[in-house]
Amino acid sequence: MEQIENKIYQLLEQLNKEQSQTLTEELKNILEPYKNGSIGLAQINPIVGNIEYNAQKVVKYIVEAQNLGLDLVVFPELILMGYPIEDTIDRHPIIVEENVKWLKEIAKITTTTTALVGFVEPRKYNCLTGKKYFNSVAILSEGKIKGIVRKSLLPTYSEFNDYRYIEPSPVVGMQPAETLGQFDEEMVQTCPKTIDINGKKYGISICEDCWNNKEFFNDTTLYSLDPIEELAKEKPDVFINCSASPTRAKKEQLKHNMLSFIAKKYSTPIIYVNQVGAIDNSSFDGSSRVFDKNGNLLARAKSFQEQFLIVNPEKGLGKVYPLTGGLEKTLTETKVYTLEYEPDLERTYKTIIQGIKDYFTKTGFKRAVLGLSGGLDSTICAVLLSDALGAENVFGISMPSKITSSESKSDAQILASNLGINFTEASIKDMVDTTTNCLNDLFSYVEKKWDGRYTKSFTQDNIQARSRAMFLWGISNEFGACLPIATSDKSELYMGYATINGDMSGGFAPIADVPKTKLFALARWLNANRKVKNAIPESVILKKPGAELAIDPKTGKPLIAEDALMPYEFLDEVIWRIENKKEHYYDMLNSEFLYEKSHYVSKEQKVEWLDKFYRRMSTALYKWSILPPSVIVDSRSINKYDYKQPITSSGINYKGLDEESISTKIKEFAHL
Amino acid sequence: MEQIENKIYQLLEQLNKEQSQTLTEELKNILEPYKNGSIGLAQINPIVGNIEYNAQKVVKYIVEAQNLGLDLVVFPELILMGYPIEDTIDRHPIIVEENVKWLKEIAKITTTTTALVGFVEPRKYNCLTGKKYFNSVAILSEGKIKGIVRKSLLPTYSEFNDYRYIEPSPVVGMQPAETLGQFDEEMVQTCPKTIDINGKKYGISICEDCWNNKEFFNDTTLYSLDPIEELAKEKPDVFINCSASPTRAKKEQLKHNMLSFIAKKYSTPIIYVNQVGAIDNSSFDGSSRVFDKNGNLLARAKSFQEQFLIVNPEKGLGKVYPLTGGLEKTLTETKVYTLEYEPDLERTYKTIIQGIKDYFTKTGFKRAVLGLSGGLDSTICAVLLSDALGAENVFGISMPSKITSSESKSDAQILASNLGINFTEASIKDMVDTTTNCLNDLFSYVEKKWDGRYTKSFTQDNIQARSRAMFLWGISNEFGACLPIATSDKSELYMGYATINGDMSGGFAPIADVPKTKLFALARWLNANRKVKNAIPESVILKKPGAELAIDPKTGKPLIAEDALMPYEFLDEVIWRIENKKEHYYDMLNSEFLYEKSHYVSKEQKVEWLDKFYRRMSTALYKWSILPPSVIVDSRSINKYDYKQPITSSGINYKGLDEESISTKIKEFAHL
Repeated sequence: MEQIENKIYQLLEQLNKEQSQTLTEELKNILEPYKNGSIGLAQINPIVGNIEYNAQKVVKYIVEAQNLGLDLVVFPELILMGYPIEDTIDRHPIIVEENVKWLKEIAKITTTTTALVGFVEPRKYNCLTGKKYFNSVAILSEGKIKGIVRKSLLPTYSEFNDYRYIEPSPVVGMQPAETLGQFDEEMVQTCPKTIDINGKKYGISICEDCWNNKEFFNDTTLYSLDPIEELAKEKPDVFINCSASPTRAKKEQLKHNMLSFIAKKYSTPIIYVNQVGAIDNSSFDGSSRVFDKNGNLLARAKSFQEQFLIVNPEKGLGKVYPLTGGLEKTLTETKVYTLEYEPDLERTYKTIIQGIKDYFTKTGFKRAVLGLSGGLDSTICAVLLSDALGAENVFGISMPSKITSSESKSDAQILASNLGINFTEASIKDMVDTTTNCLNDLFSYVEKKWDGRYTKSFTQDNIQARSRAMFLWGISNEFGACLPIATSDKSELYMGYATINGDMSGGFAPIADVPKTKLFALARWLNANRKVKNAIPESVILKKPGAELAIDPKTGKPLIAEDALMPYEFLDEVIWRIENKKEHYYDMLNSEFLYEKSHYVSKEQKVEWLDKFYRRMSTALYKWSILPPSVIVDSRSINKYDYKQPITSSGINYKGLDEESISTKIKEFAHL
Repeated sequence: MEQIENKIYQLLEQLNKEQSQTLTEELKNILEPYKNGSIGLAQINPIVGNIEYNAQKVVKYIVEAQNLGLDLVVFPELILMGYPIEDTIDRHPIIVEENVKWLKEIAKITTTTTALVGFVEPRKYNCLTGKKYFNSVAILSEGKIKGIVRKSLLPTYSEFNDYRYIEPSPVVGMQPAETLGQFDEEMVQTCPKTIDINGKKYGISICEDCWNNKEFFNDTTLYSLDPIEELAKEKPDVFINCSASPTRAKKEQLKHNMLSFIAKKYSTPIIYVNQVGAIDNSSFDGSSRVFDKNGNLLARAKSFQEQFLIVNPEKGLGKVYPLTGGLEKTLTETKVYTLEYEPDLERTYKTIIQGIKDYFTKTGFKRAVLGLSGGLDSTICAVLLSDALGAENVFGISMPSKITSSESKSDAQILASNLGINFTEASIKDMVDTTTNCLNDLFSYVEKKWDGRYTKSFTQDNIQARSRAMFLWGISNEFGACLPIATSDKSELYMGYATINGDMSGGFAPIADVPKTKLFALARWLNANRKVKNAIPESVILKKPGAELAIDPKTGKPLIAEDALMPYEFLDEVIWRIENKKEHYYDMLNSEFLYEKSHYVSKEQKVEWLDKFYRRMSTALYKWSILPPSVIVDSRSINKYDYKQPITSSGINYKGLDEESISTKIKEFAHL
């Protein structure tokens, strides 16, 4: 069996390179015994809103499936439009009209090979209750739309906003083609939920529709309806789920277990086709898969790339590509904070690489310019950009000030040379001097009218960071298709330890969802696992992070970030506990941190760090709101499209008060 | 009657200044005949998440209502938490625990005066289906929670994201207090939906719950359930709606007509209590109101300020404060594009003033610094800031370059002097020279590795804009509690005609939702209507807008924005048609624009402008995503919390294709 599968995929890959009648015929012959019930999974990478671009890919795989005589070809959720299109279609409804036109024309080229094509379905405009659109899948065959499946469960949390523009379908499974754009509940009741294709019954659902099994989720589910349970009542031969699900830490295990559980529970194979490619802040991993009726993995497509996979779940035809990009290692989950990042590093790498690549290509950029400080953040960014865009498309600029050490300068240069990226050095000394002089003059005027001039301000630090950004944006303006890169990391963004219009400014922020301790681990991993080993100088990994913007009066050396903030290992655990366990101040004060196992931390010290954390976090909210697009990598993030907190939420009591204190305060308020 | 009402409000206002037993007794005596059925509307301005701050205000008005012997005191939606709290409570659930503790303690101080207090209600955690929270109102009296009302309809569009964190209540009206945190559908069925207070039946709903009358909205509604219709079945004496509804162009008329319609249709008075104050991008106008059973306006609170209003809708007690802030003028709506902005200018002004004031005070800032170019945008911003924060808290900096005309400089100075704001001049010449020199060196290195250097780049223009921002952020860093201001306007943001890290950078963007033609009208309005007349020099209004960043080679004078873009009158109509009528390219090409009535525009010219519009808009999406917070003013906006379009949505066909072209393309794709 494995031999046959390998042969099939060799031929398929060849076919993708050189369309040839001979190859097609050979493949068709091999597939003959699996013809009845054969299904193609077309895992493709769309551009949201660019229907022609997406349609071209859809048509390509429909034709391929037809040539091979498959029963069915399945595409990811909303594939004609790309997911998520968000409010775009509310303001530009012509895009929706277009996707229907394309759908109808695509239907005309279908044969006996059925195609499941996702599209945005506009609902009838007069006498309308609810949102204007359904998130639908059209069942196309023999030149026609044979039926429609509509999404019932609408994820509206994290990066998902389905309920902003989509109406949930009150019924699951297939509905008649005549209901296109004019859903009619009565008509629907008479229609079987499953569709019959060559004597096999298929139960089709869309993404979130299969994420609501009460048993699997221990009775804690987001919705009362379970579409899979409903479909199961008609005893389909195979479940199909058209999906667009981005990768995040810990998600892979959950997805695997859940799909396997469903297949086993209903003793029905399940086919899951996922979108691949990044859209702004979300990186979709593909990794489409098939479980047989015993819940065993029968097939899985590649991760982080387009692929066409052929399966027959009942006849056991399938090929399990390994989960690549490190996704397989995320199949075990830790419940406590640990610095053992290794299992998630390859996935982190691949997720960001795809994020960079797709952001650049889908917006028409091809080059990146970044400052190389010799520090960890810019070093990691340079490696990632080099791998995503090609070394020749990356320009690293070392921009020393008088504080910059010679080691930092040489580290930057060595890194650039190791990576083979373009490199030059440009001193910011003149910029800083001129700006400082101009500002000092200006401040002396302002001071005449305003009190409150800081004796120890960050002005001088920020002048340096902003001068550097000025250089990078200058290059972006002067040279075609070039974006400057924001190098801020997650730990420092939480603390607002980043300069507005400085290091946090850019066209894209590759590591904004990676905490510092993980970046150290990633540096080691990159040195060990990239083709060119040890591109990152050891000294970059060994030195204590610091912005090299100011001198520490105590040491006479550049200020170390951990002194200004708190130890990164402690900081990152605070972030982890809030994001993953939703702990509050006293939960953390009363738990032992990993850092405390190896370092003595007095109660006063811990209180100081925790207080500092919440104080700094509250004032960092504004910075989160103006951060450039960045790939969401972690299980939770502060990406503004994933997490929303009003900036004016000052004075939140993250510690909480007890009833008695509250009661006392209320009595005081009442006697005002 | 009017005399009594005036007396009541004189006493109430006095009471707010000096709490006195004598005043309270006098007021109580006047209110005696209206005692049965008397209701206080407490229109207050919360800080989201700051429960103690909000609770203090709630307690104040509960005690006031008790002292006056009112039957009932009503607060806006979610008042203990502030609306909208968004994802904050998902990450920091202790805030929700806190608001329940505060609620329970507040309940203990209640007497026979019932209080309706909005709060976030956590749902029972085990065996939970749906979101973790309800958006609820507690009915507090005689030391206890007497019942709970839960929101059923969850706005999830524009700036509203209720369904991200709130579960819709399947039943409307009152539910037993015992269901707090553990909603039980069976228990609920036995409970009357209305609540009896002193022999009167009240039907309580929350915000969106009253926005779904099928008849009023011509059978096009967002939800199938109509909570008001359900409540009406129990024939309440009075409807009450606790609300948090921000002001937007055209919304006032709709709200007025809808509330009046409901009162009349059910022959039942309706009391609507609205939040006041701004939260980040949304400005809530208050203007709480009461309609009698005939649909006539009986009472209305002030707009844009906190107020305590006392009514008795059945006995005809109520005071109609005029809709202030220009809201009353928005009661007529235009269906075609017009330059007659006058009716909406005062509302625009008040909405922004409140937006600035609350953003600054709620985040702890008090001063603003901005560049004064002598142009319209910075001029209007200076006036608004001066009025919102006080002239002494505003610093205008004229930052001339070699391109800046002497008229621009003097206009800036005259404006500052007219406003009484702080002012100084600081040349950017040295900054620009140094930056230009440094960049030219740098470019010569980059050029060795990269082709594609622009011969006519915007680098030089942007250096100027960024040097200015460098000055402003420097002042913000050096002087306490000071924010720099982004002066970009809506027309130019649509066109991406704004410099990243330059004029579009700042802590707040006051006019980001005001198109240019409206700014001209606003300038005239400000000159006519502010206490100090004609603060804006006539020359500022008369001159053609331009960034003064580059010289037009054709004229030898600074480049005019309209030459780089298109006439603002045309541009603003394109924006208006897209936002308000959702028109597409050909709709607009085939319609006569207002501009075309007074100017000859060839077909080629119109095509060129429309093409330019869509091309520039597509590349402006990134800028929208990093714009600082700004007040949403218009009926539709590009504020990222109001409108979401992926940046990677390149290649959208805003023109659309006909079926034949699509069919041809598909055939081509199929024969690849």
